[in-house]
Amino acid sequence: MTRPIVFLTDYGYRDPFVGTCHGVIARIAPDTRVIDLTHAVPRQDVLRGAVELARSIPYMPTDAVFVAVVDPGVGSDRREVALVAGPALMVGPDNGVLSLAAETLGGVDAAVEISSEEVVLSPVSRTFHGRDVFAPAAAHLAAGMALEELGPAVDPSSLQRLEDAGVADGRVLVVNGRRLPRAGTFAELPEREPGIIVDSEGYLAIVVNHGNAATALGLAAGDAVVVESG
Amino acid sequence: MTRPIVFLTDYGYRDPFVGTCHGVIARIAPDTRVIDLTHAVPRQDVLRGAVELARSIPYMPTDAVFVAVVDPGVGSDRREVALVAGPALMVGPDNGVLSLAAETLGGVDAAVEISSEEVVLSPVSRTFHGRDVFAPAAAHLAAGMALEELGPAVDPSSLQRLEDAGVADGRVLVVNGRRLPRAGTFAELPEREPGIIVDSEGYLAIVVNHGNAATALGLAAGDAVVVESG
Amino acid sequence: MTRPIVFLTDYGYRDPFVGTCHGVIARIAPDTRVIDLTHAVPRQDVLRGAVELARSIPYMPTDAVFVAVVDPGVGSDRREVALVAGPALMVGPDNGVLSLAAETLGGVDAAVEISSEEVVLSPVSRTFHGRDVFAPAAAHLAAGMALEELGPAVDPSSLQRLEDAGVADGRVLVVNGRRLPRAGTFAELPEREPGIIVDSEGYLAIVVNHGNAATALGLAAGDAVVVESG
Repeated sequence: MTRPIVFLTDYGYRDPFVGTCHGVIARIAPDTRVIDLTHAVPRQDVLRGAVELARSIPYMPTDAVFVAVVDPGVGSDRREVALVAGPALMVGPDNGVLSLAAETLGGVDAAVEISSEEVVLSPVSRTFHGRDVFAPAAAHLAAGMALEELGPAVDPSSLQRLEDAGVADGRVLVVNGRRLPRAGTFAELPEREPGIIVDSEGYLAIVVNHGNAATALGLAAGDAVVVESG
Repeated sequence: MTRPIVFLTDYGYRDPFVGTCHGVIARIAPDTRVIDLTHAVPRQDVLRGAVELARSIPYMPTDAVFVAVVDPGVGSDRREVALVAGPALMVGPDNGVLSLAAETLGGVDAAVEISSEEVVLSPVSRTFHGRDVFAPAAAHLAAGMALEELGPAVDPSSLQRLEDAGVADGRVLVVNGRRLPRAGTFAELPEREPGIIVDSEGYLAIVVNHGNAATALGLAAGDAVVVESG
Repeated sequence: MTRPIVFLTDYGYRDPFVGTCHGVIARIAPDTRVIDLTHAVPRQDVLRGAVELARSIPYMPTDAVFVAVVDPGVGSDRREVALVAGPALMVGPDNGVLSLAAETLGGVDAAVEISSEEVVLSPVSRTFHGRDVFAPAAAHLAAGMALEELGPAVDPSSLQRLEDAGVADGRVLVVNGRRLPRAGTFAELPEREPGIIVDSEGYLAIVVNHGNAATALGLAAGDAVVVESG
């Protein structure tokens, strides 16, 4: 009984990067199904990767191991993590790319830093952590390894969120194709016009001063929202 | 014992559309093999999709569930259908995209309109019926659901064929890269020159006035022919 | 118990070539996992295909059947071969595309020319041997057919190597992005400068006259090296 793996990257289709990761997975978990969600995330676009992963949640097997590799910080000291969020497991760099999907599932219940010598390929390359760290971690989880066997526990509250990661910088943001101003507080926004603030938890919030943002933007609970720097 | 699924679309590889459909299938039929025939059918090119699907038949598992999503009419009142043709099952929009493959297998034995609430995802989107209608229908069929559980029976003779769908309009058509004139009858064509007419059943026929079209075009029984508007 | 198949071609993703081969494999070996290493090898670039296949070896299942189809000579009298190299099986045209991977695994232990009527699809097309010869051969091997059932034995020493195939012709070669001169012997090279010679076994060798090529190029054992005509 293995879990399926849902695999998202910005590797594209020109190089054998994705195929190589598939091989690594097949060596460790020969019976695991791998669902290629997409490998066409724009290069290093962590936010887009995070949004696509979160949008996919309702359509993927609930017990999947989600692996997301959009990783501009590879080779730096950003951590490599695995986590539990509801029924799912997730693997990726600690740069926010997993954060929206985890929130969709109620938040992170537990997390570890991937470091076990039983898991990470040796020698680990400087730039291809998809092959050497994330694919093997996902495969071991899919094959039944317990999360804590991957490495030492990490405080879930220490995990990067997208706002922390500085992804949503800028004075104007584009939400679902509509340009919205960014303000420090509700009060700085014109009345009844939607805009964006950073709320008390550090998240971006789409708001309407004296109004309802969901109504203004035609959104319902669970709808996906794509935010881009404008 | 599940049937394999053969999957053809015009979704391309930039967006997570194909991967999302794979997830939907895996939720319903975790053990089903999915063969991605191609997702690079030119956008909304129903004829090309139909031809590629028909050409694939000799090379695909005979008991496959074929899903073809080339669907310029999504959101209109065109029907969503599932059908039996010989040993195969087929799922797609009722716009002719399944018709050539079904003919290759001897024609449609039975058909239904996909409407069961047990099958279609809710709420169904206006534009992504691959995810909400066709992928789940194919997965349920692959997992053993009977055709009639998908929805009410449809008269096979009411299903769209390509000529009905107006795909092959135009005065000149390109057949396997060669431009051929279109005529109303044999007699309108120059002698011994190949051309195209619509035959008594409403199908395009490649013909030679006072000659043999197979010989003229170097074709043998079973050869695939690609026809494009010229 | 079937072996997984690792599949590399220069077919690209626009046409249903890859998907058609998947269908052929699924008909013969319904339970075999297929790992698409890459299908974006530059068209007819045998050397690149050979290098990518060889680089993949440490990351692929050890008992895999490797199928590589980069085949500018399709339709000529070049042979279609299957071979054993260490724990792996390999299938492809006899043009050198398998040679580097086989060397990585210690060389070819046995080889056959693929010709069995039980294996090759009939009629075999002139140009699509991936579908008609290589995919069915790989699928039969994956499903347990013995190598010698594919066709008559071939002397492993008669198999094409890349140098034999004339791929590495030219006075200057580019190694990992660096232009290196080609010489007949060590002595023709400037002292302490890396260059390329053909060694006594007919292989390209990167060498430094009075020095160490690995040090000069920053390479360690097992590192991949890409050589291109400059």
